[in-house]
Amino acid sequence: MNKPEVTIYKIGGGIIDEPAELTSFLHLLAQGSGLKILVHGGGKGASTLMRELGLSPQLINGRRVTDAATLDIVTMFYAGKTNKQVVAELQRQGINALGLSGADGNIIQGIKRPVKDIDYGFVGDLVPGSINAGLLRQLLSAGIMPVLCPIIHDGQGQLLNTNADTIASAVAVALADAYTVKLHYCFEKNGVLRDVTDEQSVIAEINSIKYTELKEQGIIADGMLPKLENAFAALRQGVSQVIIGHARNINNSLHTVLCLN
Amino acid sequence: MNKPEVTIYKIGGGIIDEPAELTSFLHLLAQGSGLKILVHGGGKGASTLMRELGLSPQLINGRRVTDAATLDIVTMFYAGKTNKQVVAELQRQGINALGLSGADGNIIQGIKRPVKDIDYGFVGDLVPGSINAGLLRQLLSAGIMPVLCPIIHDGQGQLLNTNADTIASAVAVALADAYTVKLHYCFEKNGVLRDVTDEQSVIAEINSIKYTELKEQGIIADGMLPKLENAFAALRQGVSQVIIGHARNINNSLHTVLCLN
Repeated sequence: MNKPEVTIYKIGGGIIDEPAELTSFLHLLAQGSGLKILVHGGGKGASTLMRELGLSPQLINGRRVTDAATLDIVTMFYAGKTNKQVVAELQRQGINALGLSGADGNIIQGIKRPVKDIDYGFVGDLVPGSINAGLLRQLLSAGIMPVLCPIIHDGQGQLLNTNADTIASAVAVALADAYTVKLHYCFEKNGVLRDVTDEQSVIAEINSIKYTELKEQGIIADGMLPKLENAFAALRQGVSQVIIGHARNINNSLHTVLCLN
Repeated sequence: MNKPEVTIYKIGGGIIDEPAELTSFLHLLAQGSGLKILVHGGGKGASTLMRELGLSPQLINGRRVTDAATLDIVTMFYAGKTNKQVVAELQRQGINALGLSGADGNIIQGIKRPVKDIDYGFVGDLVPGSINAGLLRQLLSAGIMPVLCPIIHDGQGQLLNTNADTIASAVAVALADAYTVKLHYCFEKNGVLRDVTDEQSVIAEINSIKYTELKEQGIIADGMLPKLENAFAALRQGVSQVIIGHARNINNSLHTVLCLN
């Protein structure tokens, strides 16, 4: 029997910080067919709010150091403001969206990141079994689109701040048993570019062999490398396709499709 | 066939503003048997955050005047911080709680309060059919405890600030077809008191006839009157019992039970 299809979309700050872009994206999302899950990141709003309250946002290697006060702010911003505004807009578009932190329905339970060189504070890491795939399936079956924010919990009453890319990937892998899963990362570029200065030079498809070639040629480098490493890791764990492209193009073919073969 | 029982608990600022009281209450809630829904109000935290941001909270007749900036704050505080902390603590206690604003799963859709003498701003009123009883039933059947915050939506993309007592009552009435419903209001007193200066003078049970007597005797007056009027309105719409008492006593018999006959 063919498995049903589900697409996990991930959006980040580049869209969330631009209300008009966000509304356009949600409109496109509502137009597309099939089962969907949306994972959203944070954006700059939480840092702005922190500064207004006299706090100093601290990032190390792009990850937010999360003390107790920062956790309160990001929980309010991601799980409160952003998540509920996105859900309300999707409802307007006729999509029965339902916003979730990882604590809700125990949908994502992780562990507080162990302190090695750096103490990231209340930052959560995912572990095997972190994703409650059963509840996601129940929601999808009930015609609901889960909208996940990057706040999870540890099962001991502690909320934790987590990376939205990581959540999207873990959710995709966790659903691969029951669904044919597409994982669609939206970002500021049209896809993986042959020439980073030319938005029209999108590489339409990259499989494992081509990926090795492109790395050897130096065409894939820098910031794109960890993105694609994570994408191929998800593919090796059963995800059918990973798509990387601009949020404006989720319903057309201008993007890069990654697959194993 | 007997209908299954569900109890809707409502807690307000008196408990939410006291972390130790809140944790104790959630512990008691986890110990109690049967299907449950929790509705929580706001507390003082949102006003404190507003003042820290240089905004001036404005209340008229105990209701918050909600401009766009205030709506952002209460959405962050109620749907973000309070709701997720409550859910994470219930998860710790072994209860599969799931937090919801009214936008989530379109669980509560209302209308922006029409402007008469006072413009309350983005404040929502409930109307017949506001409550999505079907989804609440699905969640309860899946072993989930819905935790509702007082932020709803209008179906047109607008979030609205709403009174938690009103939500609790409307949810209770909406579920009365399918369940035997108890509506349990937790507040700072042990119940309806024969002598307001004596916490031990709790009137154990009040039916419609006794209610009329107590009003005539002046024993029920002032702030207690609208509470009980709303309670009897819920009873007339099919709710089986309304219970009023202190959050510490939800699992014992120290409280006032209101019923029609």
